[in-house]
Amino acid sequence: MKLADIYMQFQSDITIIEQELEASVQARHDVLKNASTHLLKAGGKRIRPVFVLLAAKFGTYDIHVLKNIAVPLELVHMASLVHDDVIDDAELRRGKRTVKSQWDNKVAMYTGNYIFAKAVEASAYFDHPRVHQVLSNTLVEMCIGEVEQIRDQYNWGQNLRVYLRRIKRKTALLIAVSCELGALAADADPAIQKHLYNFGYNVGMSFQITDDILDFVGTEKQLGKPAGGDLRQGNVTLPALYAMHHDEEISHLIKNMLKNEFPENIDMQPILKAVKESGGIDYSIEMSDRFLHRAYDSLERLPDCEAKNYLKEIAAYIGKRKF
Amino acid sequence: MKLADIYMQFQSDITIIEQELEASVQARHDVLKNASTHLLKAGGKRIRPVFVLLAAKFGTYDIHVLKNIAVPLELVHMASLVHDDVIDDAELRRGKRTVKSQWDNKVAMYTGNYIFAKAVEASAYFDHPRVHQVLSNTLVEMCIGEVEQIRDQYNWGQNLRVYLRRIKRKTALLIAVSCELGALAADADPAIQKHLYNFGYNVGMSFQITDDILDFVGTEKQLGKPAGGDLRQGNVTLPALYAMHHDEEISHLIKNMLKNEFPENIDMQPILKAVKESGGIDYSIEMSDRFLHRAYDSLERLPDCEAKNYLKEIAAYIGKRKF
Repeated sequence: MKLADIYMQFQSDITIIEQELEASVQARHDVLKNASTHLLKAGGKRIRPVFVLLAAKFGTYDIHVLKNIAVPLELVHMASLVHDDVIDDAELRRGKRTVKSQWDNKVAMYTGNYIFAKAVEASAYFDHPRVHQVLSNTLVEMCIGEVEQIRDQYNWGQNLRVYLRRIKRKTALLIAVSCELGALAADADPAIQKHLYNFGYNVGMSFQITDDILDFVGTEKQLGKPAGGDLRQGNVTLPALYAMHHDEEISHLIKNMLKNEFPENIDMQPILKAVKESGGIDYSIEMSDRFLHRAYDSLERLPDCEAKNYLKEIAAYIGKRKF
Repeated sequence: MKLADIYMQFQSDITIIEQELEASVQARHDVLKNASTHLLKAGGKRIRPVFVLLAAKFGTYDIHVLKNIAVPLELVHMASLVHDDVIDDAELRRGKRTVKSQWDNKVAMYTGNYIFAKAVEASAYFDHPRVHQVLSNTLVEMCIGEVEQIRDQYNWGQNLRVYLRRIKRKTALLIAVSCELGALAADADPAIQKHLYNFGYNVGMSFQITDDILDFVGTEKQLGKPAGGDLRQGNVTLPALYAMHHDEEISHLIKNMLKNEFPENIDMQPILKAVKESGGIDYSIEMSDRFLHRAYDSLERLPDCEAKNYLKEIAAYIGKRKF
């Protein structure tokens, strides 16, 4: 079974969600409308909505209930991307110009706020206190993660624990909550909700580590932006973290190359090469696999069904994706 | 009766809200914690919480219910100030350094996001769908207002309607909703909720117009920042709008002075003087008074009680405040 088959299977429901997304960011104001539409059209795998739908299969599945969870979650994701691009001074995302690049930082900040507010609005119609609590707590944690990312920039002394906690907040939590709330909205058993949360958390961790690996080994074409961008921005991810902890020479190389220069002028090739040779990539792949297997373990605790197979398929895809 | 008496009357409840505000922005991360605390300590009149409390007097008053409305509303207000300061490149607010000035734009953006998320979180414990709907809709409208403000910067051709709609979104709506939700949380009669909304809206409009006037006539000491800052930033408010519509010479003067120069180098004195002489200040005072009287009219529809007198008192204070 391929990932495309899963999307095919849920095509009509994904279309409903896509329409709701589009409707919910419609604004009367040109800049806001254009920036939001630009963002929406830039696409993305809509992986969070897909997790909502699959998780709901363990309970009473009703797309018209589920869309009210899937839409806010995807909007939160979109809003966080817009703000991330401001922080990272990113010109490109998935090969397309970012909002901050096409307009400016101010427009990007407010477009992010607007989409964020729309997410809150979309969830407001959900009459279930726990949904609001989980969602709002996730927002808070994500914000803390964003601040941590700034705090940890160019901090070469950070340890593994700091990195893992940061990517949990940045990525894994929203995926975990997508699975949890999908099950909750479908009135699935609380134990199932918990297992799905754990599944999502572990998949999310694996996903982000893979993302961080790809930033070192991917081609510009695959990434839609030049490789080494994370480190260039001072974002220390797992491959570099490992390399710097295990090889003092690389540590010096990175610190020196990223010092006293405009980031855009740095030739990242020597650094990328050094990180690969340090074993940092292999270590990261291993770590990503470890989370992936924990995700499979969580799945094993769930009753057998088609959705379970689909979730396993998506996890496997995430584990081996190349871009 | 003086405004201070009203605060005295509600002192213990305002203290509870103040403590909740402080508790809710407590973060484990230094930057976030310091930026939020800095913001909280910078104070403010907590006028939105006071409106919540007064409005609730028309129903069943319970501070431990009301605080769950008052806190998110004040947090939303605080978050919007932090983001406004990024947009306005403001160094000072109420004579104190802004978050973006003391730290930087990125920290300010994420501090704003964090406080915003905390507002959503604080309201999540309120089990009343209508509260979430009103609050989230207000967030969306405020975001649109912020984008409008950017769109309308340096737009000399805008009309009165555009200005009024913008200040509604920027200021009046949140005050209107503070009154409405205070009454709603206290289970007051829906008609009373509506009148209180209207009261808040009109007070808010009057408040913002007064604010815009003060930016022309206030001293640097009163304002906590140099006069003329709005126009210097390209924000066209009522006094300037009137002056430019009624006197082509002033219109040319403003357009020319604000063209081709770094805003901080512009000597605003000739512009401030011209706007005053055009009658723009008098016109704005008149407009502010008109909204104030509409606010009184809304009050007249409410049953007589102490809270009603207090609301009238606050409205009067807002009408005549000098800074």
